[in-house]
Formats: sequence, C-alpha cells, structure tokens
Amino acid sequence: MQDKCGIVGIYSHNDSKNVASPIYFGLYALQHRGQESAGISTHNGQDLNTYRGMGLVCDVFNNGKVDELEGQVGIGHVRYSTTGSSLLENSQPFFSEFQGGNIAIAHNGDIINSMELRQELKAQGHQFRSTTDSEVICHMLSREYIKNQDMIECIKAVTRQLIGSYSMVVLVNCDLYVVRDPLGMKPLALGQKEDLNMVASETVAFDVIGAKLLRDVEPGEIILLNDKITSYKMDTSWIKRAHCMFEYVYFARPDSIIDQRDVYQVRLNIGKALHQEFPAKADVVMPVPDSAITAAIGYSRASGLPYGEGLIKNRYIGRTFIMPTQGERETSVKLKMNPIISELEGKSIVLLDDSIVRGTTSKSLIDVLKQTGVKEIHLRIGCPPIISPCYYGVAMATKKELIAANHSVQEIKESLGVDSLGYLSLESLIKCIGIDKEQLCTGCLDGEYPTELPRDLELYESCRC
Amino acid sequence: MQDKCGIVGIYSHNDSKNVASPIYFGLYALQHRGQESAGISTHNGQDLNTYRGMGLVCDVFNNGKVDELEGQVGIGHVRYSTTGSSLLENSQPFFSEFQGGNIAIAHNGDIINSMELRQELKAQGHQFRSTTDSEVICHMLSREYIKNQDMIECIKAVTRQLIGSYSMVVLVNCDLYVVRDPLGMKPLALGQKEDLNMVASETVAFDVIGAKLLRDVEPGEIILLNDKITSYKMDTSWIKRAHCMFEYVYFARPDSIIDQRDVYQVRLNIGKALHQEFPAKADVVMPVPDSAITAAIGYSRASGLPYGEGLIKNRYIGRTFIMPTQGERETSVKLKMNPIISELEGKSIVLLDDSIVRGTTSKSLIDVLKQTGVKEIHLRIGCPPIISPCYYGVAMATKKELIAANHSVQEIKESLGVDSLGYLSLESLIKCIGIDKEQLCTGCLDGEYPTELPRDLELYESCRC
Amino acid sequence: MQDKCGIVGIYSHNDSKNVASPIYFGLYALQHRGQESAGISTHNGQDLNTYRGMGLVCDVFNNGKVDELEGQVGIGHVRYSTTGSSLLENSQPFFSEFQGGNIAIAHNGDIINSMELRQELKAQGHQFRSTTDSEVICHMLSREYIKNQDMIECIKAVTRQLIGSYSMVVLVNCDLYVVRDPLGMKPLALGQKEDLNMVASETVAFDVIGAKLLRDVEPGEIILLNDKITSYKMDTSWIKRAHCMFEYVYFARPDSIIDQRDVYQVRLNIGKALHQEFPAKADVVMPVPDSAITAAIGYSRASGLPYGEGLIKNRYIGRTFIMPTQGERETSVKLKMNPIISELEGKSIVLLDDSIVRGTTSKSLIDVLKQTGVKEIHLRIGCPPIISPCYYGVAMATKKELIAANHSVQEIKESLGVDSLGYLSLESLIKCIGIDKEQLCTGCLDGEYPTELPRDLELYESCRC
Amino acid sequence: MQDKCGIVGIYSHNDSKNVASPIYFGLYALQHRGQESAGISTHNGQDLNTYRGMGLVCDVFNNGKVDELEGQVGIGHVRYSTTGSSLLENSQPFFSEFQGGNIAIAHNGDIINSMELRQELKAQGHQFRSTTDSEVICHMLSREYIKNQDMIECIKAVTRQLIGSYSMVVLVNCDLYVVRDPLGMKPLALGQKEDLNMVASETVAFDVIGAKLLRDVEPGEIILLNDKITSYKMDTSWIKRAHCMFEYVYFARPDSIIDQRDVYQVRLNIGKALHQEFPAKADVVMPVPDSAITAAIGYSRASGLPYGEGLIKNRYIGRTFIMPTQGERETSVKLKMNPIISELEGKSIVLLDDSIVRGTTSKSLIDVLKQTGVKEIHLRIGCPPIISPCYYGVAMATKKELIAANHSVQEIKESLGVDSLGYLSLESLIKCIGIDKEQLCTGCLDGEYPTELPRDLELYESCRC
Repeated sequence: MQDKCGIVGIYSHNDSKNVASPIYFGLYALQHRGQESAGISTHNGQDLNTYRGMGLVCDVFNNGKVDELEGQVGIGHVRYSTTGSSLLENSQPFFSEFQGGNIAIAHNGDIINSMELRQELKAQGHQFRSTTDSEVICHMLSREYIKNQDMIECIKAVTRQLIGSYSMVVLVNCDLYVVRDPLGMKPLALGQKEDLNMVASETVAFDVIGAKLLRDVEPGEIILLNDKITSYKMDTSWIKRAHCMFEYVYFARPDSIIDQRDVYQVRLNIGKALHQEFPAKADVVMPVPDSAITAAIGYSRASGLPYGEGLIKNRYIGRTFIMPTQGERETSVKLKMNPIISELEGKSIVLLDDSIVRGTTSKSLIDVLKQTGVKEIHLRIGCPPIISPCYYGVAMATKKELIAANHSVQEIKESLGVDSLGYLSLESLIKCIGIDKEQLCTGCLDGEYPTELPRDLELYESCRC
Repeated sequence: MQDKCGIVGIYSHNDSKNVASPIYFGLYALQHRGQESAGISTHNGQDLNTYRGMGLVCDVFNNGKVDELEGQVGIGHVRYSTTGSSLLENSQPFFSEFQGGNIAIAHNGDIINSMELRQELKAQGHQFRSTTDSEVICHMLSREYIKNQDMIECIKAVTRQLIGSYSMVVLVNCDLYVVRDPLGMKPLALGQKEDLNMVASETVAFDVIGAKLLRDVEPGEIILLNDKITSYKMDTSWIKRAHCMFEYVYFARPDSIIDQRDVYQVRLNIGKALHQEFPAKADVVMPVPDSAITAAIGYSRASGLPYGEGLIKNRYIGRTFIMPTQGERETSVKLKMNPIISELEGKSIVLLDDSIVRGTTSKSLIDVLKQTGVKEIHLRIGCPPIISPCYYGVAMATKKELIAANHSVQEIKESLGVDSLGYLSLESLIKCIGIDKEQLCTGCLDGEYPTELPRDLELYESCRC
Repeated sequence: MQDKCGIVGIYSHNDSKNVASPIYFGLYALQHRGQESAGISTHNGQDLNTYRGMGLVCDVFNNGKVDELEGQVGIGHVRYSTTGSSLLENSQPFFSEFQGGNIAIAHNGDIINSMELRQELKAQGHQFRSTTDSEVICHMLSREYIKNQDMIECIKAVTRQLIGSYSMVVLVNCDLYVVRDPLGMKPLALGQKEDLNMVASETVAFDVIGAKLLRDVEPGEIILLNDKITSYKMDTSWIKRAHCMFEYVYFARPDSIIDQRDVYQVRLNIGKALHQEFPAKADVVMPVPDSAITAAIGYSRASGLPYGEGLIKNRYIGRTFIMPTQGERETSVKLKMNPIISELEGKSIVLLDDSIVRGTTSKSLIDVLKQTGVKEIHLRIGCPPIISPCYYGVAMATKKELIAANHSVQEIKESLGVDSLGYLSLESLIKCIGIDKEQLCTGCLDGEYPTELPRDLELYESCRC
Repeated sequence: MQDKCGIVGIYSHNDSKNVASPIYFGLYALQHRGQESAGISTHNGQDLNTYRGMGLVCDVFNNGKVDELEGQVGIGHVRYSTTGSSLLENSQPFFSEFQGGNIAIAHNGDIINSMELRQELKAQGHQFRSTTDSEVICHMLSREYIKNQDMIECIKAVTRQLIGSYSMVVLVNCDLYVVRDPLGMKPLALGQKEDLNMVASETVAFDVIGAKLLRDVEPGEIILLNDKITSYKMDTSWIKRAHCMFEYVYFARPDSIIDQRDVYQVRLNIGKALHQEFPAKADVVMPVPDSAITAAIGYSRASGLPYGEGLIKNRYIGRTFIMPTQGERETSVKLKMNPIISELEGKSIVLLDDSIVRGTTSKSLIDVLKQTGVKEIHLRIGCPPIISPCYYGVAMATKKELIAANHSVQEIKESLGVDSLGYLSLESLIKCIGIDKEQLCTGCLDGEYPTELPRDLELYESCRC
C-alpha cells in the first residue's frame, strides 16, 4: 500500500500533439522518487493505452513504446520499492474499464484506511488484482459513478472517505483530473508550456521540458484538465495543512520548488542553522553524498570552514546488483562510497547527513571513515531525531527499528563512535523551511500526526507493501 | 469473448505433490485447442500463484516457472487466437482477490449474453481489465458471494444467468470447482491417477500423464474437488443436451474419447459413410492433412481404393511467422503444404477434407493440386454444408462469409474447380457420431440452435474477440 | 564437428532485390534438417551482414532481422543438435574478414580429418573461435589465398585436402561459391526463379518460393554464382560416388527430389519391397509417424491390407521442453505418441519404421502399443540393420550403442518383444532407391566406407560436437 | 580500434576460490571508464569461459552468469563507446583457441599501427572477427608462439612491434600475463588481498573489494601471475615515460591513486593554481558536475570564496535513452543538468570545468546558466587549451573539431559569452600533477607526441571505432 512515488499528468490543447514523450521526460526528471517501476497511460480519443515495466524509466521505455502511446492526454508514474514485493501487477498507472468508460490512476501517497476500504469493497462484491491504493480508489470511483455520473462529484465523494496522503492524476477517457489531499501532504504543482498543461510531483519535471511553474495544486483542490482548466474544492473546509517536512530535508531534488519553498535554499539554511546550534572546531566540512551536499555547503559557508569531499559515490547503479556474499559484507558499503584518504587522514571533520533512521548505514560509513585515520568526526544531522513511524508514504521503518525512538542522543553518539553529534532542533528546521508548524507534518519527529492513525497498527505494518 | 480453448484442473490428495507439472503436460496434450497463450494457477494453501504468457505451452513455460508454481491444487488454460486482439491481459486463468479469498478461473466456451452481463455489472460499479468471459463470471461469483457464502450456491446462482457454452474450472483458495454447462456443449472429462484427480477438455490430457478416464463431467454438473469429490446438480432440470458435433468432425484430437464416443472411430465412420453416399472412380484417396487423415483412411477402406499422400505438411510452426509480402502470396499456401507431384500427375484422386467454411483455403489447395497435372479431383467433405454461424465458441465466420450460406453445392463445386463434390448428409453424420440429433448441437448446419441467440447480433459479432 | 544441417544460397541478378527473405523461406522448408540454430549472411556490395540465433528459423527471425539483412546475394543455414554443446558460437554461417575481404561459410557434412587440419592450422599460428568444420575450411581458404588470389584455385586446393562429406556455400564479398564433395555424399541442388539463382540441400526449399529445379550440383563441382553462372570441376577425376542412402530412408522430406530420385517413390518402393520380403498376416498396416508413413502406405498397397493409424503424434514441439522427472519417465514417450486403443485392441498389426539405431525408442513404442491389448506386432524396418557408425554427418551412435552391431535379428526381435521382425535387405534397398551400389554410401550397413576413416577413432568420437 | 576502457585481472592462490565475483566488483568500480559493454573470462583449469554483453556491468551480469564463471584466474573489461559501432563482436575480453591452448585478452589503450599490423596478418592468412586491437595482438601472439613456445618471449616479440598505448591482461590457460607499454601511457596497478593478486586500471577497483595497492605495474614490465609472481622487462631499454595527463584532469576517479599521485589532490591543486593564475571577483565558486567538483573546491579554498552548486545533475542514466526530437533540442542539456536559479540569479560566479574539447557542451551549459539571470560568469578550465588530437585512446576529436586548435582564447571567450576565461598553464598543470614534463604525455596540449604517429592520418581517423 505504501507508495513513495512520482507522478506526471499532461493535457495538450493541440490535438496533433502526443503527450507520451513529455510525460516520459517528466518521469525521467522524477526518477529519484522511484526506481522500481515506471508506466505511462494515454488516451487518444478512442482507446486508453498503457505501458508499464519494472526498472528505470529509460530502461522500461527503451523499445519504442513511447512512440506507440498516442494521445493528447496522459499520465505517468514512477514507483519506489519499499519492500520486496515488487510485482508488475503493482506498477502504475492502474487501469480498467468501468461504466463511465476507461479509467487510469497514478497515485503518490499512502491511504491509511485503505485496508478497511478494501474490505468494505470486497464485501460489496468487488475484486482486486493488486495491492495498490490506486486500485482501491479506482473501485471507489466506479462505485460512486453508478450513483452519480458527475465525475467531480464522484471524486469529492471518494476523497471524503480517504484518510492519508494522496496526490493523484486520474484519467477518465479524455479528461484529466488532478487531485491533492486536503492536508497537502505530498507535493503537486501545475505548470504550462505553450499549449500543454502539466502537473507533476516536483517542478524539475517542468524544467526538463521547458515548462513554467504556474502554481501549486492547492490542498483539497480538484483540477479538471480538458479543453479548459477548471478548479474545484473538496467540500469539507480545511484550515490545517500538513506538508511533509521530509521532502525538504531529503526526498525532493534540491532544484525543485515545493509549496513555494526553494528546496536548495531550505537545505542551505539547514546547514547554516546546524552550525549555529552545533558549531565545531574542525579542518573541513564534508557531506554524506548526495543528499547532504547542500546542507554541508551551508555549514561551510556559515562556519567559514572549507568544504570538502571525504566520500566519493559510485554513480553507476543498475536495475539489479549482485550483492557480495556473506564473507564479503564490508564490500557492500564500499560499492557505494569510497573514502578519499588524503583528505581524511589526521583531519578533524564535520560530517553532514540529512537524517538517521535505523543508524545502521551511518555506523558503516563512520567505520569506513575511521579506517582512514581521520582524527575527529563531528556528525551533524539535518533534522531532529526520528522517533515515530511515518504513515503517509515515506515508509522509513517501524518504531522498534528507529534508533532515536529507543536511544538518547548520547547513546547514539556512542554507538556510532563519533566525537560529537548534533541534530537540528525542530524549531530551527521549521524556520529553515519557512512554513508554520501548523502547516507541516512533523509526525515522525514528535508523534503529532495530522490525521487519525490506522485502527490496527500491527495489521497495517504487516501489510506494507 | 470467444474462447476456443483447452482447460485442465488437478487436485492432489497427497499434499506433498505439486500439480503444476502434470497440468503443464496436460496443457501440452491440449495444445491443438489453442496456441495463442497458456497459463497455470496453483494454490499452495497460502497464496494463489499464476503464470501466463503468449505462445505455445512449452515456450511460455521454458523458464523454470513450472517449478515455482507450488501447490497441490491448480488449473491451466490454453487459448485460441480467434481474432487479432491477442493481449496478455486476455490470457487465462483470470485471477483476482475477492471477499472469499483468492479466485482463478479457466473457461472454454462462449457466453452469448456476456455483453449484457458485463453492462449490468458495470452499472453496479464493477470494473473490467480484460474482454474475457472468465472475468465476467468471476465478477458474478464475487457479487453472489456477498449474499451467500456457500460457493456451490454462488455457482448455481451464476450459471442460472449464463446463456451459452461453458466448461470451466474455478479455483477458490484450495477448492477446485468443475462446472459444465447444462447442454454439455463443450467436452469435459474426469480422470484419476493414483492420488490425483484431474479434469480436462479431452482425454488425451489424461493419457499423457498416465491417468485413467473415470467418466465425463455431466451436463449441468458441478463437482467440488478437495479432500473428497462431491457432485452437485444445477437446479434447473435439463433433458436436452447439445454436444458440439464439430469436436468430432474437426476440433478434438483423434485419440480423444468425448462423451463416450471414440473420435478416431467417428472419423473412420465419416470416411466410410462418405464413400457410401458419394462413391468415386479414382486411383487414390488422399486427405487434406492433418485433420482429414482418419476420414480418408475410412474412405479408402470402404472403397478399396489405395490410401495416399498428395500434400506434405510443414511441421515446424513457431509462435510468429513472417508472412511473404504481397508479390509472393502464393508462397503462403506452399509454406504449409507441398504437393507430391509423382503421386498426383495424371491421377484421379478422391480428396477428403473435414469441412468447408469460407472456401478460400480449399480454393488455394485445389489450385496447388491442379498445377501438378492431377487428372481429376473428387472432393469429399466430412460434414454437411455450414450455413449458419456458431455462437458457442467455434468462431468460424459470420453468415455472409460462409460459402455454403450463400451458394449451392453445385456453385461451390464450380468455383473450386473440382470434378465432383460431396458433403456428408446430416443424417449420416449423426449416425457416424452415434448420438441422437436431440443431444447434438447442429446449429451451424441447420440453424437449429439449442439456446436463445444474442439479442443484438450485429453488436455480438463486432465484439468477438 | 558433426553437422547434420540444411543450407541455402541465393544470388539475385536483379540488384534491387533482397535475398534474405527467400533464404528465410528456404530455411523454413529445410527446418527438418536442423532445429538447433539458424542463421543468414548477406552481402550488400559494401558489408557482410550476419544474423544467427538458437532455435527454429521462425523464432530466430521473429524480430524484423530479415528485413535488415540487405543484399542481392546471401547464404543461410539450419543446424542440427547432435550433442549437448549447442553454443551460439557454433551456429552458422561462420564469418570473418580475411585478406580477400569478407567471407561467410555454411556447410552440411562432416570433414573426417578436420581435427588434423585444425592442429596443422594452429601450428601455423591460426586461432579458432568455434568447433565447426566451417571455421577450419575458412582458415584453409584464407591461407591459400595468400598464395593465389584466384578463389576458384583456393577452393580446389582446399578441397584436395578435405576427407569426408561437404556440401557448402561460400560467400566471398559478392561472389557465391557452391561446392559439393567429389563423392556427392550430401545432397545439393541448383534452382531458378525468374532472376534468382538458388542452391539448397533439398528441392523443397525451391518449392516454397516457387523456384524450379535446374539440376543437381555435380559431385566434385564448384559453381560460381555472380552476374553469370560458371561451373568448375575439382581437378582430381572421380568415378565413384557415394550418395548417402539414409537421406532416402529417413532424413530428407518425402516431397524432395534428390539426385534425380523422388524420395516419396523410394519410400513407397521400400514399403512394397518389405512386403515382398516379409509378408505378414495381419489386420492393418501402421507407420511409426511421421518418417515411416510413406513406407507403410507402400506396404499397404502391395499387401492389400488396410492402412491405419495406431499412434498419434503431438505436433506442437517448442524450442525447449521440460522433461518429466525421474518418477514419470513413461510420460516421455506419451508426450510424443499416443495410441488409438480402438484401432489396436485385439488386432494384428504390421508396424513400419524407417530404421533401428539403438533400439531404445522402438522398445518404448512397442511397450506403449502392447499396453493397448494389441494381439500381434509384425515390425518391418525400411533399411538393413545398422551395424557400423556413420562418419559423414548422420551422427547416429558409436558402434557399441548400435543394437544391430551387437545382436542378431533374432535377439533384437526378442528384446523388443515383437511377433516378427523384418529388415529390408541391402539388395532391395538399392533397387528401391534406383542408384547403383557403387554410387551409394552404405558404410553404416556393411562397413564399406567410401573414404579413409579418422586416424584415431576414439579421439574422433570424443570430439563429436 | 579506439578503446577507452577499464581492465581487471585476478589470480587466486587459493584454488577453491572463484575470481569472477571480485572481478565483477572491480569492473563495477571502473564503470566510469566504459559503459558500452562489459565482459569477464575465467579459466577453471579445464576450460576458458567468457561472458560478455552490451551495457553496464550490473545489467550485463544480472542473470547469474557471475556464478557460472568458474576458475581461480580471470580477467575483465569495460568498454567505452567512442563511436556508433557498438557491436557485441567488439566487446572484450577477446578470446580464441590457438596452438598453446586457450587465450583471452582485455586491453586498454590504442595501438597506432594496428591497421598496418592487421594488413600484415591478413597477408599471412589470418582472419578477423572484430575491429579491436585485442584481436590483432591475439593473432600476433599466436603467430609468435609457433616460433617459440615461451609465452614471455612471445609477448616481448609482439610488444616490440606495437606503437601506442597498451595496458593489458592476457589469460593463457591458467597463466595471467600483465603487460604495460614502455611509456606507461595508461595506468595499471598491482594489488593484493589475502591470497588474491589483482591488477586493475585504477586503485578504486582494489578499494571495492578491500585489496591493497602494492605498486604500479612498471612501464615496460610484464608480470606473470600464476602460483608465483614473476616480473620481466621488455628488452628495449626505455628512459622516457609518457603518463597521460588527462587521467588526472578528467578521466580517472578522484579517489584513485595513479602512478603514485593522488588524483583528488592533483585536482585540488589544479583549483588552487587556477585561482593563482586567474583570480576573479565573484560571489561563489561552482563546478560543472561531476568532473570539476574537486577543482572547484580547490579554487574555493584558495580564494576564500564560498563553494556552491549551480547545476544539479540527473543521476539516473540508463543504457539507452530516447533523445528528444528536433523541436525539443534544448531539453537535451536540461535532461542532464538543471540550474538552481536561487543560487545564480544576480550572482557573479566562478565556474570550473575540467577541459574544453569542441566547445559545444560548454556553450549549451553557459546558455542555460545565462537564462537564470546570472550576473557574471568567470570560466576557469583545469588544463591548457587542447590543440591537437589524442592518438592513444582518449578519442576526443579530430583537429578541425577542436575549438582551441582553431580559435584564440579571446575568441573562445567571446563565442561562449563568458565574462572571463582562464585556462590553466601547462607549467602549472605539470606542477599540480607533480610528474616531470618528460614523463608526461602532453600531445594534445602542445603537439609533442611520445611516439611516431599513424602513417596515414586520414585513414586512421576514418577507421576509429
């Protein structure tokens, strides 16, 4: 059910234009949001056509399929592998035929009550082919449709029942519906390039084809893209918002702009704030690449300490990789990161990382660094301790796996074997992002979740897939 | 919706035995009933596992998938390509998850009112992923299930609504339901080998693994195979039966026994009866290979004329074949059949064929034969003129394409350019098969169909896929 | 080194015509000569292009490759799997670049002294990529070429050193050289269709594209096909010929004409002669399908006994087939052949087979037949006992595996459990074929081989691949 | 003939250890040296086994092939696509069978006279399957071997005839020969991990499996790895060396140590020296990622200007990528690099790049930057102007394509539209590397090549593949 993903939707007002190609490029720019599978659905006025496959966008579509997907409207999806159950059946867009015609859905987020909704639908005779939230939503829409043939009303009725995060694109015949949950948990932006309208999880998908950001899709907004653009509001009135803070800290690309905040600047701020809260006497500031690079630059600028690279990352990551056998475990970290001994030996370093989840990767990295003869390591983390699970799509870990849920900062410092450890405070993080706490989701940091939680947490966790 | 297919179902009473391997061999023996796609579903007590692919059984399963399909119960299917829409989505078994657990269906036959049933289901909020009857039945079962959790009652309720032919195997979790329509249109037999129970479209699937035929599944019977064998009757009482005569004439393998009739003997009888009705003065009796071989032997025996081969068939048929370009059309027949000139030149031949549908293939073959210098061709056809379409799964052609629906025997003889033409009479055919006319379906021969016909014939024909 | 294969070569005198397509159809017609791998090389005036793959012709070339192979001249090859070492590296045409330009070779036959030639070439610094005779010949040609740039002279010089059987097509840039060994062991025929000249292992390759047989390539002849047709003779004068009798008995398609003998008629003659030598009192004459069908028809005609089918062959053979596991061995024969019980039970039958090599397959078949309750089996074999190995490409077995090399006819009869057993005599076989004994190779039947044998027989046998 | 590549060779002194796995990891670490194809050959005492494929190491070997490659000795290769002719036939290791047994070769470098050597070999009857230098060397070795069965003498004799660069590993049966050209143009290092000896193009291949660098393979050295390590010298005495300076500037990974120079430190030095030679008044120092990151850090440190990122690189590069059509050309750069507008708008930047070859990529990048509203761009290049082609494997361009061969620095500055442009001087570069000019190859910078050039330059360039 967990879907950490990227989505794209495009409507071309020029009926001779095929949108599969710009959707493909948009997905390519969103590849960091999911490398497990990729898919595109388009509608050419007659038929809905979908092509999906396991792997990177460029590998899935290396066979001429982009050209075969005709139509001036379409949607696309990249999916993140959260667990082992990576089946083609679970790749998106999910598509089917219902009374209203053809439907295809691509979804980013996590519906907390999808298990209950699924049971309810089954109890009404519905059948399921996948374990995705997209299929649940698809069934709900088709159930609503028999009561009311106005698709906007159907979407409103369905979203009233959804608890959780959802940014989604729904293609019903030639109409493209764009939906963002009332809390705005997952990003979703609206852009334009000449006669194309485009929505995407991040603005980098606009940049890659030269589209311009018009505005964010509003939390609780439904946009219908067809020959015109029409905006609707979900009927419950929402004041609260809950933008996921982790998009800024780690998940989004640094060159994206999310809910009017420039991710790169947020990360620079994080580095600067970390220096303010946890200055260190050291020779050099270094990031854990790639996610902490910008924060390390920020720390370096604020502290006046030189910026440097202590770890070089191997850039060539294929779809599958043969992992070293038991006896060669240490290879595993070295396959991804190699230390620059001449920059580390005898030096005191400030090491920036975006977050610590389980602590196991951090431990391996610190060990690799210590073998180089580094003198001191001052570890600085770009967000507060993660003490509670995420139920909205980040799928980080269960509570008992979270190191900070079970250990004090002092204990973590000792177990990692670093000379000092500083986590950014929540107050600072909020300032760095520049969005009020009431409008952010900080559930994983302080346990204050913006929605009800799953009724049966154990069942919920066992079903994560 | 048309599914000319072969099905297999196996339940092993020995829980350490995997049934995927005998299902695979059974499908291999039924390969003549469908070469478009193949699939197997098994249930291992925990999960339903399905593997399907386009092409021949041995090509689809050449990758170790048979061994991965665990379970002591399972079903299999081979599908015939009736039209161009050969999509993986339409391959069977169709499977899904419903309130009662996991379900998989493999179906042989044609539900005449499936379009109406489909519309009705959509109007109740159901969605469709394929165009198969199996999916329609699957939705109907899941809709019934919410009213009554007794699967036998669900099957009874569903079959009450089905018009048409259906032999099917339905796997619901670890229970295997075997269903044959009240008219017994399509064959379905029950066999046994040690602790395995098996059902299959034809007895050749038993032979290949050394199982023995116990009996035919009765028309209107539902058999539940699990730790015991239980037989149920559909609640409407049926007197009439309507076994498809075309299974005997052409479709089944000659080494099968269908509804207690030995197909080989039926075809020998056909040859003998043809000699009785249409003797000919000739040098040799020859079949159009392979389907008319047995009838030709029968004609030869009855007439005392020597049996011979005039056409050699190329045995190597792959999944795809590059057809000759326009300028080389005549190659097309020669790719399949090559004449033996030394056996034909200057000879008078009796040529046996099983049936004439459109007449185009017959014409090409006759032309090839005439180029060899054959003196006379006396064409004998193993069934009466086909004058009306089949609505139960044979998908031969629409009425206007049927040569005998629009031309007299004399006209056909002239257009083919043969020296004489004899079609077996209906009376003789019935005698050859040895089943009363009231218990046979002869719709395509005399227009007397055993069920209501589709309400909208034009729509029905346009939707055949 | 053993290559039981089919070859095709085409030169089009119309420079706008691509020959890859007719080569493809020709190979398709020769598929019975080899199912392991297929390949085509063409030359377009600039480049030699080759595409090869494992499997059936239609599977290897199901990807548009035929259209990509440009050129008005080309060659093709299908290879038979004689042992397990089926590597793409060993598929043909073998191709390389040498001083004279590009060369590609497709070869049918077996060079007895290829091991010695290979050692000699290595001792001169040559390297090998495959274990094929084609590569050996290719190296020899390129070694000759540096002495004499006349390709005809090179071929003459090379063939002077070859002992064994070889029908081959050699493409050197745009020139197509056709070579048949001085004994004419393997068939090779020359045909024509409009502006195409074609050579092929069997005439069925002509039939499939509508080409006409001009004549056989003469034993010891070299034909150069380019803008004209030029015939050369190898310079040693040969009187003896040694056409392989097994082509007529079993290997060739019945609709081929080989060295002016119609294979179908030869097989009819064999059946008739068998009746003359070994008449039997029986109810019916039946073949082991498919190879013995024609002989069974001949026996039936001569004896007046009715012809019938006792075993039905499964026609669907894919590239790979999962064999039954140990406990299900009997399935293995049943996968290929299924008995018609109603034709066998209580009957006396004459069973025709083309030959007995090891006797194991015959034994399994007889067992299957006996389980049906057949009364008597009178086995008739279309050639004399095989008592000695073939060194020229048929790769049947080693001497110790040959049942007739180690057992009397009486012993064989008993071990098979048949009621009578008759092998065609050598004298009769020669008459049936209609070629003088001096012009036939009967090595496997009487040990009289037409050439020297391999120096080291043990080494030779261990290297068969 | 051009092979910009990475090579690995491993001999395990523990005969139960398979070396394919550490070779695989080594190739993975060298992936930056070639993404076109990958291959591994191992010898298990009996057979040489080779597996090669197109694409990334992890994609080629995602099928269990690593485990199938048995043996305690082996070699591996990754190949760079210099032109369009990327054929499997040209992938390495090249392997064959010769008089001495089995041989496999993996080569990094460029043999300038390979065309002449190839012609000479053809004139002696040798044949070629690929266009690689490896095959030429393989033939030469096999030609030498027939004169002298001492492989070391063969290698000496062959290398005496080679002009150009070559680091190579040659597997002859179970013996692994390691060869580096007398000028030491391409890197090659010797390492050890427990009972494994390893050679690789760069030390990062050691790091990934935890091996230690023992020393560089000496220019002109031949090392034989079998049950012991034996070093030989090519017999001509060389004083001059010619290490490729471009390895330090661009090609090698920054975490490698090449000929005792730490690449990371060299690049830091380059940044510092560029600041000394071309200081600039600016707000921030930015690299063109990834190759110029280290130099930018060096410049930042020396200047005291803050380090920053102006361009974010998309990390997900698959084997194939559908390029945008004509009308969307600008997308092409944006697919790889996206600017961070908030870091650029209104800023003066120092932009570091490693080199300028044609100038086209630089121009596109500058254009992208200028669209962000950057105030000033001061471009600094980490090496002198490239004015002459490379003949030793870098395959950068022909002379007429090199922008600095045809334009002054002032002209280049203007055409790129930057505010200032500074190329590092040759003297500085030499100091940064720390190797005397006499021991460096600077051919592309000053036209002083360390060897003879190809006799026919035009032919040479046309044959680059």
